Amino acid sequence: MERIIIDMDEVIADPLAEIANWYERAHDIKVNYANIKGGTWMGGFPEQHHQLVREKLFAEGFFRNLPVMDDAVDVLKEMNKRYEIYIVSAAVEFPNSLKDKHDWLMENFPYFSWKQLVLCGDKKMIAGDYMIDDHLKNLIHFKGKPLLYSALHNRDVEGYERINNWKEAATMFLK
Amino acid sequence: MERIIIDMDEVIADPLAEIANWYERAHDIKVNYANIKGGTWMGGFPEQHHQLVREKLFAEGFFRNLPVMDDAVDVLKEMNKRYEIYIVSAAVEFPNSLKDKHDWLMENFPYFSWKQLVLCGDKKMIAGDYMIDDHLKNLIHFKGKPLLYSALHNRDVEGYERINNWKEAATMFLK
Repeated sequence: MERIIIDMDEVIADPLAEIANWYERAHDIKVNYANIKGGTWMGGFPEQHHQLVREKLFAEGFFRNLPVMDDAVDVLKEMNKRYEIYIVSAAVEFPNSLKDKHDWLMENFPYFSWKQLVLCGDKKMIAGDYMIDDHLKNLIHFKGKPLLYSALHNRDVEGYERINNWKEAATMFLK
Repeated sequence: MERIIIDMDEVIADPLAEIANWYERAHDIKVNYANIKGGTWMGGFPEQHHQLVREKLFAEGFFRNLPVMDDAVDVLKEMNKRYEIYIVSAAVEFPNSLKDKHDWLMENFPYFSWKQLVLCGDKKMIAGDYMIDDHLKNLIHFKGKPLLYSALHNRDVEGYERINNWKEAATMFLK
């Protein structure tokens, strides 16, 4: 069975939607989506609020109730029958997120076992046949086939095969 | 730089000492160490207390203050300069342990970065040159060189090269 390594944030979970909602409500300033690039969201927020945004990411509970990416639940349910799937999140930087991420995955993707979750710092030691991830820094070390999951912050990246949404993933993996 | 994958419980941390201390104080019954074998501690405890022992492992805080294995801090400090080290713990079964394990590692091994910690369910997707682990179920899937870290529960296991303590690890990796 082929092994697929799948990232969490901005691939199956939508932390940018959550933080943008919170930010726009709290500050009455629109997120500047046009300025999100180079692998980070920070360009979308005024510089004087970068520290606030970072604190939000470190707060307990932030990752517990993130929106799920469209079609991820249905498509991964089928993929989970045909592939060895691991959900691998570089979450250890945010120690308060660890249990939240476990609980979020078990609630929203109840067909996954806890054995399929990996919470790491970097992903250099992760091996598999495919890796679906929105960050170059993760894909670049991967020995299998890297697949860039499209996000605002990576729209300028060239040279990687892309998955733009979970319907495309279904076309690729469930034909 | 060669990559060494190192387990946490019963390799650098001593949860058995912690649980035995707690158990013997709470129940005034000695742990039956002679009966610990087959990859589990449970034989060391009367059957009517197995559920209690399991609940202790699931409780928040249990993994936060475990004793550190002798010489692990000093030997790993040197190994960390010569090898790419990851501390990989199959901890996701115990969601309350995740932050505790992060905090324990950062406190007791302050020279490690959070980037070097991996909290997973199983270890099938972990790649490296060496894996030091007390469980056969982890070593058996590993593509690099497996090294069995000796523990009471694995004393009957044959066919693996062993590390009996961190002084032996120093002889092997720091010559």
